[in-house]
Amino acid sequence: MDYDRLFSARAKSLPGSAFVHLIPMMKDPTTKVLCQGVPPDTTFPLSSLRATLKDGSEIALDAEEVVLAQRYPPFAWGPLRAWLLEHVGFVHRPPLPDWDLAVAAGSMSSVDLALAAFVDRGDIVLVEEFSFTASIDALKSYGAELVPLAMDTSGLRPDALEAACVKLSAEGRLGRAKMLYMVPVGHNPTGTTLASERYQAIYELARRFGLLIVEDDAYFYQQHTPRAGSPGEASGGQQGPPGLHSLGPSFLSLDVDGRVLRLDSFSKWLAPGFRLGWVSGARPLVEKYSALAYTSSQHGCSLSMMLVGKALQSWGQDGLDRHLRALQAALRSRCDALVAAAEEHLGDSAHVFQRPQAGMFLWVRLARCPESTEALLAAMRQHKVAVLPGSACSVAPRPQGQAEVPYVRLSFALGEEHYGEAARRFGGLAAGLP
Amino acid sequence: MDYDRLFSARAKSLPGSAFVHLIPMMKDPTTKVLCQGVPPDTTFPLSSLRATLKDGSEIALDAEEVVLAQRYPPFAWGPLRAWLLEHVGFVHRPPLPDWDLAVAAGSMSSVDLALAAFVDRGDIVLVEEFSFTASIDALKSYGAELVPLAMDTSGLRPDALEAACVKLSAEGRLGRAKMLYMVPVGHNPTGTTLASERYQAIYELARRFGLLIVEDDAYFYQQHTPRAGSPGEASGGQQGPPGLHSLGPSFLSLDVDGRVLRLDSFSKWLAPGFRLGWVSGARPLVEKYSALAYTSSQHGCSLSMMLVGKALQSWGQDGLDRHLRALQAALRSRCDALVAAAEEHLGDSAHVFQRPQAGMFLWVRLARCPESTEALLAAMRQHKVAVLPGSACSVAPRPQGQAEVPYVRLSFALGEEHYGEAARRFGGLAAGLP
Repeated sequence: MDYDRLFSARAKSLPGSAFVHLIPMMKDPTTKVLCQGVPPDTTFPLSSLRATLKDGSEIALDAEEVVLAQRYPPFAWGPLRAWLLEHVGFVHRPPLPDWDLAVAAGSMSSVDLALAAFVDRGDIVLVEEFSFTASIDALKSYGAELVPLAMDTSGLRPDALEAACVKLSAEGRLGRAKMLYMVPVGHNPTGTTLASERYQAIYELARRFGLLIVEDDAYFYQQHTPRAGSPGEASGGQQGPPGLHSLGPSFLSLDVDGRVLRLDSFSKWLAPGFRLGWVSGARPLVEKYSALAYTSSQHGCSLSMMLVGKALQSWGQDGLDRHLRALQAALRSRCDALVAAAEEHLGDSAHVFQRPQAGMFLWVRLARCPESTEALLAAMRQHKVAVLPGSACSVAPRPQGQAEVPYVRLSFALGEEHYGEAARRFGGLAAGLP
Repeated sequence: MDYDRLFSARAKSLPGSAFVHLIPMMKDPTTKVLCQGVPPDTTFPLSSLRATLKDGSEIALDAEEVVLAQRYPPFAWGPLRAWLLEHVGFVHRPPLPDWDLAVAAGSMSSVDLALAAFVDRGDIVLVEEFSFTASIDALKSYGAELVPLAMDTSGLRPDALEAACVKLSAEGRLGRAKMLYMVPVGHNPTGTTLASERYQAIYELARRFGLLIVEDDAYFYQQHTPRAGSPGEASGGQQGPPGLHSLGPSFLSLDVDGRVLRLDSFSKWLAPGFRLGWVSGARPLVEKYSALAYTSSQHGCSLSMMLVGKALQSWGQDGLDRHLRALQAALRSRCDALVAAAEEHLGDSAHVFQRPQAGMFLWVRLARCPESTEALLAAMRQHKVAVLPGSACSVAPRPQGQAEVPYVRLSFALGEEHYGEAARRFGGLAAGLP
């Protein structure tokens, strides 16, 4: 892989850290270390920290751990990193001999640093035609030219990716195409999950056209229904949620070239307040990511790292599997309830794109396109129901005068007891659009 | 202030968040909210969290707070933000009628986002001739042209700033000069604190030449010795550390134009592991900062926000003053011990630039300049003492063939009992340089 072609000017002009050569000395107990910038740990405010987990078990940081939880992240990420190395190896079995991972300050910070590492203004990024609002915003802020790619109910269409690359190549612009940014599982906002057989096809296209794949898989652990083509699906989906053991493919699991940077998040399967995730992929990609993180997010919060690392260790694989099954079952139940409520209340004015297999989102096509986002917002205020306008998720620039797209995103954010009334109000909103 | 001239292309091309118009609906209890992307909070792992503080007091998050600590930051920053608004008002009394602040994911993330907001490749940033290593790295990665400004034992020299701006103006390049980036108190690495009378002079120069001031004041609370010109100094410094009540001037406290973005950190006076700080300044600057944070660091960790907010509230002003005095006294004692050890052991081979009034750093001039950073690192390994090479802190490009600068930074990282031996080893290193 020719990473130099892919790295941004920012990534290339970041100097090597002066501390790289100092760290071995800082770890040597016979060396007197006068080069750190930490306040005396005797003045750190916390002397102990205890938490009760939902399952009733207790975790407590010992005296040494509570100090580490208050120091800079490199002193705190050890236990979490060790757990992640084993976990990622188990779940994805990365075929690349030299893969690595880094703890990250939440998935949004990972998206930001992935763009910082690769995107110069005017570079081309290929994106599913609808995508995560904040990622679209970040891509635009970095000055990327976005090429939207068509999707169907099985996710991104490989033929759309191929056609876009062939067109860029014919235009002599393929050299500016840096990456394919994707949300393959429980896609935000459409709720699609990439069909298993499409992974290899898309990976091969990325090889053919020299693209990096940024695999933003924030909803990977939110698979609540067996994937199309999986053994779970063959049994009619009766065997329950996939838990830890049937999570299915990923681009990282196929990556033999080192062209995949995979972004994972704890936000959607533990809690967003920890502001933690991780990135994995070929070592040079992870190293560049870490160098940029050192001058920005610093890999996230030490306190969270110690608590989350402790909780995951105390659970073990069985505890994690139980946690994921409970989460997936809760999402499946909410998904079924919201789909049922939509079927009951939406009538002809709105149509559910598909029942999702993963994630938290129901993508709904409106029979009549709102005149403008302002008109849609006014209708929401009138009917007292809040949904996400499709325009916020749309990658393609809209034709002049057409301010909205005929879609909205509904999420399983509320408890199920509210879905009937919420869908009734939303049905009224959709029916009332002029 | 013409902020449009100052904002970067990235800041200008960041779309307005789609959620701005949704948030009032999300807060209305009569509205059914189907637009969020949060997992069910019944699946969050923590059901309680308790901590013991160093003073023996206990803090615990109640059932509602422990949920908020696991949600996205906007649901968790309320108590800390309320505390900060009162605190910043009390300490700095910002004269600008429309100032604001935002919680930040640590000071390094603040530096990153301040650069993201203002610096395009090729823009000019004025910086003290020596500066914080990671900020220099970040500035270089953003493609800034750095203009180093001379310092003396009273900090940045206003005449150096004026001469540099006059020169840029004569060259027709002042329009590309975006900001003065400064560490005014307990300067990293030189240990200087800007003399009180220099603040207004520098602020007036920033007005005259149309510069923003990014005031990176991470060591502001680490003032361990009364400032030059302060009432504390008039009493011979015998009245003890300044605590909360004699912290002295800041650029924010002078800012009548809205040209100051002040960066504060919890890392150096509570603990770096919380990864929290805050930014303050004119509302349009803080709003742009927050918009960029929304697509990157997300303002930091909710868990930390709730814990730190709770600890500060439980301390009150008296508790905070006690905490700061204890920290400042510890630093003063360490400073005196390291200065004394240096005086005893360094002889003619190295010279302490000045005894710092604030911060954790002793800046030392070597009688003989190391041939290269590699040679200096080899000498450190041989003498088993680790210091920060001055080259890592040097803003000016060095002349061809001159790889090092004749300075190193010593810090009060170790306990005082080690300083004699550490200074003895460092003295041997300095004396042994060829």
